[in-house]
Amino acid sequence: MKIAVDAMGGDHAPDDIVRGALLYREKGGTADLILVGREHDVRRAAGTLPTGITIRDARDVVAMDEHPANALRRRGDTSIGIATSLVKQNEADAVVSAGNTGATMAAALLLLGRIRGIDRPALCGMLPTAKGKPACLLDAGATMDADEHNILQFARMASRFMEKVHAVDRPSVGLINVGEEAEKGGRMQQAAHALLEGAEDLNFYGNIEGRDVVRGITDICVTDGFTGNVLAKGMEGVVDVFVDGIRHDIFGGPLGKVAGLFALPGLGKFRSRMDYDPYVSAPLLGVAGVSVVTHGRARANMMRRAIEVAERAVATRLVEAIGEGVSSSAA
Amino acid sequence: MKIAVDAMGGDHAPDDIVRGALLYREKGGTADLILVGREHDVRRAAGTLPTGITIRDARDVVAMDEHPANALRRRGDTSIGIATSLVKQNEADAVVSAGNTGATMAAALLLLGRIRGIDRPALCGMLPTAKGKPACLLDAGATMDADEHNILQFARMASRFMEKVHAVDRPSVGLINVGEEAEKGGRMQQAAHALLEGAEDLNFYGNIEGRDVVRGITDICVTDGFTGNVLAKGMEGVVDVFVDGIRHDIFGGPLGKVAGLFALPGLGKFRSRMDYDPYVSAPLLGVAGVSVVTHGRARANMMRRAIEVAERAVATRLVEAIGEGVSSSAA
Repeated sequence: MKIAVDAMGGDHAPDDIVRGALLYREKGGTADLILVGREHDVRRAAGTLPTGITIRDARDVVAMDEHPANALRRRGDTSIGIATSLVKQNEADAVVSAGNTGATMAAALLLLGRIRGIDRPALCGMLPTAKGKPACLLDAGATMDADEHNILQFARMASRFMEKVHAVDRPSVGLINVGEEAEKGGRMQQAAHALLEGAEDLNFYGNIEGRDVVRGITDICVTDGFTGNVLAKGMEGVVDVFVDGIRHDIFGGPLGKVAGLFALPGLGKFRSRMDYDPYVSAPLLGVAGVSVVTHGRARANMMRRAIEVAERAVATRLVEAIGEGVSSSAA
Repeated sequence: MKIAVDAMGGDHAPDDIVRGALLYREKGGTADLILVGREHDVRRAAGTLPTGITIRDARDVVAMDEHPANALRRRGDTSIGIATSLVKQNEADAVVSAGNTGATMAAALLLLGRIRGIDRPALCGMLPTAKGKPACLLDAGATMDADEHNILQFARMASRFMEKVHAVDRPSVGLINVGEEAEKGGRMQQAAHALLEGAEDLNFYGNIEGRDVVRGITDICVTDGFTGNVLAKGMEGVVDVFVDGIRHDIFGGPLGKVAGLFALPGLGKFRSRMDYDPYVSAPLLGVAGVSVVTHGRARANMMRRAIEVAERAVATRLVEAIGEGVSSSAA
């Protein structure tokens, strides 16, 4: 197996991306890795390359705040463009990036295309929950004006993903809504509820509310890409404010520093419960190839985990399973 | 001025609701209060009634999890129904409730109706921000399938509310979206962006993302009621998980308890920065009367603040200002 890694994508590229790749191999990862990026920079960050890791030169980078589709159309030698084309040309089995999510999606859609029978792609947002296991929020921002048929496909794709990559048996699916009852929400949510309820291949739990996502009520939380993106970023914003408050307000002053010493075991416990390094990375679902997106903030360990997710998606034949699920459920 | 208080609404009714009413008067509140609820229960909770507080008997209550419209249609003697009808009959200037939000909205719409020129009502979600001042998230759940014209009206109503009740000069308005650029989002958000940008009576900031709400980037965050409700509850869910984690994981064990002693000043600082008692309460905007909704979890102090919000809305003639704004901006 070969995995192409966008060495230039993310806030801490290339250093942490390259270190993540090295870490993946050190921890026993068996896939060969192709680091795609400016050869000089990648080689400097990597030092002597161990067996199983090679470099593919790419002179350009899509910046984190750049308009993704424009960048890809105008420039043929971006790291994410070249890394994705390696998958297209069967030189790699998967691509992994911590870079501009829009560019990763655009490259996957332009170069790999959609799985036959899937109308719209969806992005997984993997979130830590109070239950200590991740929830898959989908769509986290790929498809804005999703209709109820898209939502049904999202639920099916996410079910295959959680089964295959996270080994969850019959993952439960919640429809994000403003209340529990079937008639809640707007026109689209009411129609989606009916479709999900009628889908016998799904383990449909029913409607869930915004607060149920972090509570871990269901393994999968489906919604349109607009709501999913706003919700994921809103929750992330609150996490940031709390982490900042814990660090500065609570443990900041002289007394706070003493408190911090006594609180160390508890802080560790809390941190490990809310740690999402192992599962924040997820493939873009619905594209005809494995394209794993991880957080722009990714450090080496998160990058290593992202490569592991790509490896599992390839090994468990996730893309094929999604395609089969669509054709068997289409009536 | 007279304010009708739904004494039976909320998780801690009637005791904390009644104590909130007493507190309002003790702290110098000058409006007369009418406590609406089961006379026996309210009188027992209140003890000897001070000047300026009376009781109006209402035998029934809409439960927190009850279907609101059904409850109101079938039963004429609920506390929220009677409290709202006092406003309709000019026996009170405002109604305040910590009860079933749907029932408070349904009662306001059925009994008071909409302000002339306003197509759909909107609910304010007042949220604490990292800047130590509240943000007004609207619509937090009144109107599900809002279109761009509704969003424009929401922005105008919220601007009047923040000016009048919270004395914010030219409050800034952000449109919740998935990115900063004008072309981001779905069809509705793109159309809403164009309308908001063209509205010269508004201080339009532009698009904001989910995380910007808690950061306090703008005074007002507008969106449709579906997204607003999911976002507000999603953020609340994260707050709950953190508060629980701080309490049990970090300060729970024997060492944690020692840490808690040293951390007391810091905890107080953090709590006061994120304290939203003073401003969590907000009127339902767009209805032809002042109907203030507060959190179901409201304790006495939050209830007192809710009554103060109602008082300011009446004193500053918020409902009239919204009506004038609509007629002057309609071309």
